[in-house]
Amino acid sequence: MYRTENDSVGSMSIPTTAYYGVNAARAQANFQITGQRLEPDFIRSLAEIKKAAALANAELGMIRVDVAHAIVAGANEVLLGLLHDQFIVDPMQGGAGTSSNMNINEVLANRAIELLGGKKGDYTRVSPNDDVNRGQSTNDVYPTAGKLTLLKKIPLLHAQLERMALVLLQKAEQFKAVKKIGRTQLSDAVPLTLGQEFHAYYSLVKRHIKRLAQAKSEILTLNMGGTAIGTGISAHPRFSATFMPIIRELTGEELELADDLIDATQNVECYAVIADVLKVIAISLSKIANDIRLLSSGPRSGIGELIMPVKQNGSSIMPGKINPVIPEIVNQCAFIVAGNSVTVAMAVEGGQLELNAFEPVIFYKLFESFDVLEAAVKTFVDNCLSGIEANEPRCHELLERSLYLSTKLAETVGYAVASDLTKEAVASGKTLKEVAAAKGIETDMFDAVPLG
Amino acid sequence: MYRTENDSVGSMSIPTTAYYGVNAARAQANFQITGQRLEPDFIRSLAEIKKAAALANAELGMIRVDVAHAIVAGANEVLLGLLHDQFIVDPMQGGAGTSSNMNINEVLANRAIELLGGKKGDYTRVSPNDDVNRGQSTNDVYPTAGKLTLLKKIPLLHAQLERMALVLLQKAEQFKAVKKIGRTQLSDAVPLTLGQEFHAYYSLVKRHIKRLAQAKSEILTLNMGGTAIGTGISAHPRFSATFMPIIRELTGEELELADDLIDATQNVECYAVIADVLKVIAISLSKIANDIRLLSSGPRSGIGELIMPVKQNGSSIMPGKINPVIPEIVNQCAFIVAGNSVTVAMAVEGGQLELNAFEPVIFYKLFESFDVLEAAVKTFVDNCLSGIEANEPRCHELLERSLYLSTKLAETVGYAVASDLTKEAVASGKTLKEVAAAKGIETDMFDAVPLG
Amino acid sequence: MYRTENDSVGSMSIPTTAYYGVNAARAQANFQITGQRLEPDFIRSLAEIKKAAALANAELGMIRVDVAHAIVAGANEVLLGLLHDQFIVDPMQGGAGTSSNMNINEVLANRAIELLGGKKGDYTRVSPNDDVNRGQSTNDVYPTAGKLTLLKKIPLLHAQLERMALVLLQKAEQFKAVKKIGRTQLSDAVPLTLGQEFHAYYSLVKRHIKRLAQAKSEILTLNMGGTAIGTGISAHPRFSATFMPIIRELTGEELELADDLIDATQNVECYAVIADVLKVIAISLSKIANDIRLLSSGPRSGIGELIMPVKQNGSSIMPGKINPVIPEIVNQCAFIVAGNSVTVAMAVEGGQLELNAFEPVIFYKLFESFDVLEAAVKTFVDNCLSGIEANEPRCHELLERSLYLSTKLAETVGYAVASDLTKEAVASGKTLKEVAAAKGIETDMFDAVPLG
Amino acid sequence: MYRTENDSVGSMSIPTTAYYGVNAARAQANFQITGQRLEPDFIRSLAEIKKAAALANAELGMIRVDVAHAIVAGANEVLLGLLHDQFIVDPMQGGAGTSSNMNINEVLANRAIELLGGKKGDYTRVSPNDDVNRGQSTNDVYPTAGKLTLLKKIPLLHAQLERMALVLLQKAEQFKAVKKIGRTQLSDAVPLTLGQEFHAYYSLVKRHIKRLAQAKSEILTLNMGGTAIGTGISAHPRFSATFMPIIRELTGEELELADDLIDATQNVECYAVIADVLKVIAISLSKIANDIRLLSSGPRSGIGELIMPVKQNGSSIMPGKINPVIPEIVNQCAFIVAGNSVTVAMAVEGGQLELNAFEPVIFYKLFESFDVLEAAVKTFVDNCLSGIEANEPRCHELLERSLYLSTKLAETVGYAVASDLTKEAVASGKTLKEVAAAKGIETDMFDAVPLG
Repeated sequence: MYRTENDSVGSMSIPTTAYYGVNAARAQANFQITGQRLEPDFIRSLAEIKKAAALANAELGMIRVDVAHAIVAGANEVLLGLLHDQFIVDPMQGGAGTSSNMNINEVLANRAIELLGGKKGDYTRVSPNDDVNRGQSTNDVYPTAGKLTLLKKIPLLHAQLERMALVLLQKAEQFKAVKKIGRTQLSDAVPLTLGQEFHAYYSLVKRHIKRLAQAKSEILTLNMGGTAIGTGISAHPRFSATFMPIIRELTGEELELADDLIDATQNVECYAVIADVLKVIAISLSKIANDIRLLSSGPRSGIGELIMPVKQNGSSIMPGKINPVIPEIVNQCAFIVAGNSVTVAMAVEGGQLELNAFEPVIFYKLFESFDVLEAAVKTFVDNCLSGIEANEPRCHELLERSLYLSTKLAETVGYAVASDLTKEAVASGKTLKEVAAAKGIETDMFDAVPLG
Repeated sequence: MYRTENDSVGSMSIPTTAYYGVNAARAQANFQITGQRLEPDFIRSLAEIKKAAALANAELGMIRVDVAHAIVAGANEVLLGLLHDQFIVDPMQGGAGTSSNMNINEVLANRAIELLGGKKGDYTRVSPNDDVNRGQSTNDVYPTAGKLTLLKKIPLLHAQLERMALVLLQKAEQFKAVKKIGRTQLSDAVPLTLGQEFHAYYSLVKRHIKRLAQAKSEILTLNMGGTAIGTGISAHPRFSATFMPIIRELTGEELELADDLIDATQNVECYAVIADVLKVIAISLSKIANDIRLLSSGPRSGIGELIMPVKQNGSSIMPGKINPVIPEIVNQCAFIVAGNSVTVAMAVEGGQLELNAFEPVIFYKLFESFDVLEAAVKTFVDNCLSGIEANEPRCHELLERSLYLSTKLAETVGYAVASDLTKEAVASGKTLKEVAAAKGIETDMFDAVPLG
Repeated sequence: MYRTENDSVGSMSIPTTAYYGVNAARAQANFQITGQRLEPDFIRSLAEIKKAAALANAELGMIRVDVAHAIVAGANEVLLGLLHDQFIVDPMQGGAGTSSNMNINEVLANRAIELLGGKKGDYTRVSPNDDVNRGQSTNDVYPTAGKLTLLKKIPLLHAQLERMALVLLQKAEQFKAVKKIGRTQLSDAVPLTLGQEFHAYYSLVKRHIKRLAQAKSEILTLNMGGTAIGTGISAHPRFSATFMPIIRELTGEELELADDLIDATQNVECYAVIADVLKVIAISLSKIANDIRLLSSGPRSGIGELIMPVKQNGSSIMPGKINPVIPEIVNQCAFIVAGNSVTVAMAVEGGQLELNAFEPVIFYKLFESFDVLEAAVKTFVDNCLSGIEANEPRCHELLERSLYLSTKLAETVGYAVASDLTKEAVASGKTLKEVAAAKGIETDMFDAVPLG
Repeated sequence: MYRTENDSVGSMSIPTTAYYGVNAARAQANFQITGQRLEPDFIRSLAEIKKAAALANAELGMIRVDVAHAIVAGANEVLLGLLHDQFIVDPMQGGAGTSSNMNINEVLANRAIELLGGKKGDYTRVSPNDDVNRGQSTNDVYPTAGKLTLLKKIPLLHAQLERMALVLLQKAEQFKAVKKIGRTQLSDAVPLTLGQEFHAYYSLVKRHIKRLAQAKSEILTLNMGGTAIGTGISAHPRFSATFMPIIRELTGEELELADDLIDATQNVECYAVIADVLKVIAISLSKIANDIRLLSSGPRSGIGELIMPVKQNGSSIMPGKINPVIPEIVNQCAFIVAGNSVTVAMAVEGGQLELNAFEPVIFYKLFESFDVLEAAVKTFVDNCLSGIEANEPRCHELLERSLYLSTKLAETVGYAVASDLTKEAVASGKTLKEVAAAKGIETDMFDAVPLG
């Protein structure tokens, strides 16, 4: 039922059926932090790297061709999701990702041994370190797997943001004739249309789509072949050159080798850039969510210019209460993403000399940021924005009641006089037009609502 | 196979076997954010509240006694973990926790209906809102459940910190005779013992244990009976007074009712206090982890005064490499906790008027902070601190080589002369004693290493 | 016009009239970061320490009595503010505060030399290091000065918070009869009084006053006498015991010596605790400011339940516009304090081994947090809260229009029926009473507004 | 001695000699927050805008030509720094910058009145609102002034980063033959050269220079002419088109008008992007500073591979102590910039509807981030990096002593055997070569240090 494996600590019993080995098992014991496991896209990214590396090493004569083919076959199975239960390590781990790298090294070695007719654990047939990890180090494999995973996540978020932009543009069109009062500092200001408000959100989201696309370039540069510290020790001199076209082909991404592999191995500030792009997107979405909540506040004692689709009972005690539950989840996901930006920044800052050992937490939190943000945008679009409606009578009522005319009046009577008239209107409860008329000031020229 | 349930949105098919109802099902559809579910301790805390409320309402004649008994029976099952699979909502949710509250209201209503011989979904027998939620609102139930959960988590972290303190004290004793050079700003300073260093860590951890204990008082105050906004609308006037002794009894905690229920319902800054206590603990542990990593750096080209137990292979490419994998996980968990403090602060700041709608993210991240911190301390103690050893020859070698004598010399020859002698020693590579002797300065009086 | 002074770098020309010396001058050249200088309270705190140390050293026979008296005389002048222009170093400095400590050592040495009839720069008469700094190190002096400064700042913030609490309590009393609708999640909920809302703010602020008072205990523990790393090297064995009563007397604070001086010298997490207390206060004040801005929004197209005193023209272009300028400054100061909490946490985490070298930034930002928070509360009280008035007709209008009756109705007709009635009211624009009456439901019993 | 001015609050006495007016005076009284004043570059940026606006308005016939010329003349004086003492408002202010905008409106109006032969305060001659502020609003002027200021600051930081890159490249060249051990996770790894380490820093800094240049595009888009909320109310329809070429000419920057002025007025996330670029630069510099401190640690009991120039006495009590004071200031400035990123993010998130009222704190903290970062880089280059030297014997000694050969050995004997040999070497204190030789393993082939 068990086989014995050895490492620098000693020996350990591993279930005979297990494809993972002693390194993964030790890591599992050492790091019981989150109760979670490596995420599927990250496992697939590791498999892509190991597959490409096996092919490159075979081409360079660094590992036997049959061994390479067996490793590739195992990697293909992992890409299909067949061996995911063998990835037993916690995503949060010390050791700069060595546990994750050794987990796949062991899984692929044992699967390759099997495919070659051997018995799992007989690492003389295929070695996790000398074959699967050939010419590689955790220090180039692990960050590369992180980048490939991020490259899988970016399009998912991108797609949701595009959906959001589209819905916002549709709403901008739908609401283009709905005149309403604009508010600055929560105080009545001057008119605009509800369509203009939604167009502003559209413009904002479009800008973020562009930023996200630009941010992608931050993670297209790999350090594969740099091995331990970027000097390429133990890798074939042509490993990088051989590996890169293969990984480009496998992933379809325009990946490039870093000019300075030592820099690329130790400096990981690109992840802080990504974390911050997500944060800025998140706080911008939070601002939109805040606005939507404000504009739909009420239904009777708030602003009430927007009507949100009802998605669930709002209250356990107040019958009929409608709450802005969807925008609220957007706010909360934004707070997570903002907090994660601080976590990532601290991890990036904490790198020392030839390596940043804190990549595991960087990836763990970056992946969370992508996932919650994507989910938040999706439910925002599906369950709120796409069904939002204008309360036109309310928009009209509030616009009429407001004192926006003061700004137009100032164009003819000057700021000081207009200010006095407005004070009088506020004090008396009259409209500005009534007050102006009483002073003999002509206001007919301002009958059209000025919408820019 | 399905029953139909109705809510403000319309009707929905619910599996006949399900104890949850339409409210939970809508929430599940609306909030697919984390892929996780309510955590067991939180579910248990909800059950404690519902049990206490049923008993209180029965005593006050607000619900029928047989209904109360059935609700209590269901709650007891939840406390035993029997119905946890019926809690289907994501912990991240809009609506200020209404989805969580309704999930248990529905589960207990349906279980009570069954126990009373009815059919699930027949809410005329037992109503989720009118019976299970009687005299309550999400706005008092949900924060109370969060507090009860935190009260379950505090002792777990507390216990790990106590274990850590004990091990540090043992190490302080074990290393009390190991003299070594102290370092300020990473520069050689003056001597102390390795035991003193570990005692300083002990003192630090003890201070945090005290802070954690004090922080507990922040969450002992409940707003149960305040219902929607703290005015107690719909609750029996003696609900709070009846409920409190029961919940105290059930939980064994010294819970008190808030003096100002309106304040207690809307202001949730107590969670920011807890998040920050965890953060300060975390960054302090991170400092200790940093020190341990520094002092054990090497083995040959670093400081090397400490020897850490070997817990796993350090590298996939560098055979025999030992890495400080355990302290590194401590650092990374600390970064998470620090980031979460920002998330919680933003959520607390974002509360508006009579309620803070962002409690779900507050609890989600507070629970994560507790869990990763507890796990980090546990592995730090078990897999690193308890097995750490002094490299005494190395401590001795570095102490001898250092120039700490300059500080003692200054006591007799003054700062300026001592400074010149030190510069000469550095330049010549000689010991300070040799340089002083050459100038005819007596140094025998300083032969004892000054340890304070 | 210039004298020459020497240090480990070489020699430097110092203006003959200067009381500072080469150490301060080097620091000034090295650190031109903020354009600011040490803050007066910090300089005074340094002077208190140097005065107490001179008296202690004289008593212990470590420095000559006439030298001690001259140092004390100089320190008294600094306490009167007479030599503040001689403190030329930037508060942001490397070296863990050595530049600040040497600045006062030099100023007091030169002033003492003068008082003893010597010429500035003749450090054979009084030495900055051997006399003024006797038995001390930057590593005990600098953090102690920081703590004494914080102890001077706490009462100032405390006083403003007390003023704020008083005004809020007065407003709670003033508005106790003003009934209004409560809002949860920005949606109409159930009634309360405006007085209850202000009382909730009062309760919140009172809690913070208590927290601030408790936080003070974090900084009452000193490490004076620990010198460089806490072992007390070079200090007289009875220095601490002699110094402590004197500094207690001078400051009037219940200062105590740390039990573990090594811990006390290297671990500075107490400042993170203080920074976080300020942060939690700040975000709570920001929540109040947000509420005030919301409740006073309008004047015509917002909620408009509150009327803020007019403090300045609101707009350069919109005549008569009133903006919530005072609450807005509260929000912004809160954001500063929240950001500073992250800065301080990173600095605390970054400490290494026997010292945290980042105390300068910790103090710089802590002082800023205290100052802007105190200023924000002051203007909030003086220019906003104390003059705030209720718009009673508006409160009444919005309460009447709302649907809060649904919660009371549910007590008799159940949640489900009440929910249907409410939906009908919303759809038809009728009041809930009208809708209920049409169904023959009795509502007279609910005529009293339920205020808890 | 005083003139009387009126505003919406009432009347106020203003010194006869003052160019500022009642609006600035009220703001000064309301906001006593930082004790600081508007920064010179911000005042100049305001002047550029007012000058361009006056010229545009004159061209469009919106203000009299003689008035325009007088305003331009006053603006030119401000650009020369002549009236800076008239800018009396605190940079931290409520009101979204109205106080700053009105301060310059008043200064230029009064100066123009004077130049036209009138008496200060006689706003019938030149009006702060109707003439100087013509076609403008604080809501387009203030953010534009902020952007123009940032555009003045970017080149200053850029220049310092270029200087830093140059010095790092020179050091990379200077140290290219200095072989040393590389360290991952603070543990001895494999060799590289000191030149490679400095080249990695160079590569990192170059990447930041590129990012900073790209970030500039975030703030080249203006909303001038949008006035209050982006609809352009009160501005001449061709104001934007007329203004833009003039401001481009005045500033020499490729400024463009926003496509969506409503978006551009309310959404200010571009500042969060800038704050984060600075943060990522800062934490990267902090990592370099940390490395420099580590590598120069000692001189005798640390790593000691680098020798930093001595810039001041390191300690007040330890004669001859050299501390890494310059890198320490870099760390601390980085912490400030990181904290400010959180402040800015909270301010950006807090914007509501048609305006973000929190731009004052955004600019205040962004300016601080630029200033401290620029200052930190400057002193890092001048007082540390440019004078840093290699301790070649120490580099050689530590390299020789290390066990890097294990990685090369694994290429021939496999990972497992190499691991056993390394363990034996560590245990015995022998070199790996000695251990291998004893087993009859050939190691001559590895005599060359593998540097990639």
